[in-house]
Amino acid sequence: LASKLPDVGTTIFTLMSALAAEHQAINLSQGFPDYPCDPDLLNALAEAARAGHNQYAPMAGLPALRDAIAAKLHAQHGLEFDPATEITVTAGATQALYTAIAAVLHPGDEAIVLDPSYDSYAPAIQAQGAKAVRIAMPAPDFRPDWALIARQITPRTRLILINNPNNPATSNLPAADLDALADLAEAHDLLVLADEVYEHLVFDGQPHRSVLAHSRLRDRSFAVYSFGKTFHATGWKVGYCVAPARLTNEFRKLHQFLVFAVNSPAQHALAAYLRLSQSWQSLPAFFQPRRDLLAAGLEAAGFRLIPSAATYFQLADYSAIRPDLEDVDFARWLTIEHKVASIPLSPFSEHGSRERIVRFCFAKQHATLEAALEKLKALG
Amino acid sequence: LASKLPDVGTTIFTLMSALAAEHQAINLSQGFPDYPCDPDLLNALAEAARAGHNQYAPMAGLPALRDAIAAKLHAQHGLEFDPATEITVTAGATQALYTAIAAVLHPGDEAIVLDPSYDSYAPAIQAQGAKAVRIAMPAPDFRPDWALIARQITPRTRLILINNPNNPATSNLPAADLDALADLAEAHDLLVLADEVYEHLVFDGQPHRSVLAHSRLRDRSFAVYSFGKTFHATGWKVGYCVAPARLTNEFRKLHQFLVFAVNSPAQHALAAYLRLSQSWQSLPAFFQPRRDLLAAGLEAAGFRLIPSAATYFQLADYSAIRPDLEDVDFARWLTIEHKVASIPLSPFSEHGSRERIVRFCFAKQHATLEAALEKLKALG
Ligand SMILES: CSCCC(=O)C(=O)O
Ligand SMILES: CSCCC(=O)C(=O)O
Repeated sequence: LASKLPDVGTTIFTLMSALAAEHQAINLSQGFPDYPCDPDLLNALAEAARAGHNQYAPMAGLPALRDAIAAKLHAQHGLEFDPATEITVTAGATQALYTAIAAVLHPGDEAIVLDPSYDSYAPAIQAQGAKAVRIAMPAPDFRPDWALIARQITPRTRLILINNPNNPATSNLPAADLDALADLAEAHDLLVLADEVYEHLVFDGQPHRSVLAHSRLRDRSFAVYSFGKTFHATGWKVGYCVAPARLTNEFRKLHQFLVFAVNSPAQHALAAYLRLSQSWQSLPAFFQPRRDLLAAGLEAAGFRLIPSAATYFQLADYSAIRPDLEDVDFARWLTIEHKVASIPLSPFSEHGSRERIVRFCFAKQHATLEAALEKLKALG
Repeated sequence: LASKLPDVGTTIFTLMSALAAEHQAINLSQGFPDYPCDPDLLNALAEAARAGHNQYAPMAGLPALRDAIAAKLHAQHGLEFDPATEITVTAGATQALYTAIAAVLHPGDEAIVLDPSYDSYAPAIQAQGAKAVRIAMPAPDFRPDWALIARQITPRTRLILINNPNNPATSNLPAADLDALADLAEAHDLLVLADEVYEHLVFDGQPHRSVLAHSRLRDRSFAVYSFGKTFHATGWKVGYCVAPARLTNEFRKLHQFLVFAVNSPAQHALAAYLRLSQSWQSLPAFFQPRRDLLAAGLEAAGFRLIPSAATYFQLADYSAIRPDLEDVDFARWLTIEHKVASIPLSPFSEHGSRERIVRFCFAKQHATLEAALEKLKALG
């Protein structure tokens, strides 16, 4: 049996969460909240199931949920999106990403990935028999170098992936980068796959700039979102993909054979909840104090911070603490010896990383963050 | 944009359910129940969400659910399966099928598919850049011709798919066919992907024969199951894949980037429910009277029946009613003119089918089946 993904092991998220559990460490590694979801959302789930919404949802998603998503998109961007032809509900953003990639990449094609990149992109590309052309965005700014990217484009390049806001880089692209992306995509007739799952987690009063709101990108982009991130329910695994009709048509061809449909009670619950709540508007106010608390404590413990503009992660350079350790080893050491789990950055880049940076998640209760910082005091 | 699946349209299930809704027909097309699930299962879902099980489950599935699946497999087959290395929870059986196919097929590989086949198999194979070699099992018996199959095997053949019990053929393979499959797989070193989602829906006191219980097949097979089918909750989209460790290892490499994990509240609910209930044991007694009711009524209306040994479907030859119509047209006509929706058989075969056969679903309340039969009386 020849492996389809010979270089793939278990994801760093699974490894670090398992290590955290094994060593009873506070888990600031994998990105998920440790506080409860909105009880309204949970009640909506119970009601959906008891109301009998337990059979197949339509392949493209529950119409009421797609309508609610279109209303949300309209509220966000002032633009119309057609739920019938442009919005598809997915089993989480990961499935949406895989499906978009599978829908457009043929064996031998190339896709551009900007490192550090979320760990599913390159294997999803390779699983199509296509090539992930990975281009580094250097720390600490992690800015794309568009001239460098342009030089990597070949006649086989079909797709460029962007993750904005970027996990793990915690950056939020300025307008000029979206324009540069549009120039490049137009010049080489590339499709764009934009992972925007952290669209609402942008701090310091800055706006998020979606490909959907960019006049030259919208027509060539798949944009991917996650209710798990937005509603503190990463385990529900409901997301969506927005793309123009010709792309959605190809997306759904794969989607219908990849999962066919998405969990019905959760879709009904989300449709009901979206009618009641615009709770995503309060996410910056909810997360920013957590970011600031964690940042202050990490700095006090001797880390040098890379400012977090977005996402629910904080990057921290540990070279003043253990310059001798590579990041994977540092993250292990910190978990085992100091009982705080983080995520090293090197698994997000093709050739690892020489940087001494780990990522901490602040989607946690204040008490959890305080307990972690208390443990990290011993580093100082 | 070159389509990855140029020949694929919308699935026949989506089309017929939509047509049924449009014409207010009784929907005996797509396979799903119209009666409520067990309230214990629904309560378990509400409790799981309220107890806070709303974040990522582990990639391979909730350990408690995998343990419960191992216990179920032990109860069924008297065999041990290792939840850590042999069982993976999936977002429904469709995702399990796609993932197994993506894990083992490379561009240029071939996989054997026996027609009539469930409509996701061939496109999932083609999406890998591989070739679906489709071999007809002729009506009305739909038996595999193993000598014919053997002649279609080439050095590129990697995988053979079987669906047992078979949807749409409603057959249940005798032991001799599993032996023949094992002979073939051993002789050509093929992997086997066994879609056994209807394992518990076998009638007339007959046993189901799983690849997992076959000494020569277990080590080379992926076996796929669906809680949706077994617990009358097709919309929950939770299934599982059982395969030996070396195959599960490759399966999970894809799974982790294809969906990462499966809906947490549903996994918790199913784990709790499986501890309480062995309700699948009563499925034959639950469905057989429905089958018999539907069969008698269809016969009275002028259909010639193909006996249903398994699944929750009844095949019916309509050539005594409208011999002039091809099956897709007959199903449309019956939906529009007689307000009963069924599924034509030709979309399940590579070259359509010359047969005059449609499929009716009997996973319905007695009242629904009676209402449908009342409408079909007008045919007589
Ligand atoms: C799919 S598990 C990883 C969750 C996440 O998005 C992250 O930690 O970066
Ligand atoms: C995934 S929708 C089809 C449901 C089903 O298994 C069938 O009707 O055959």
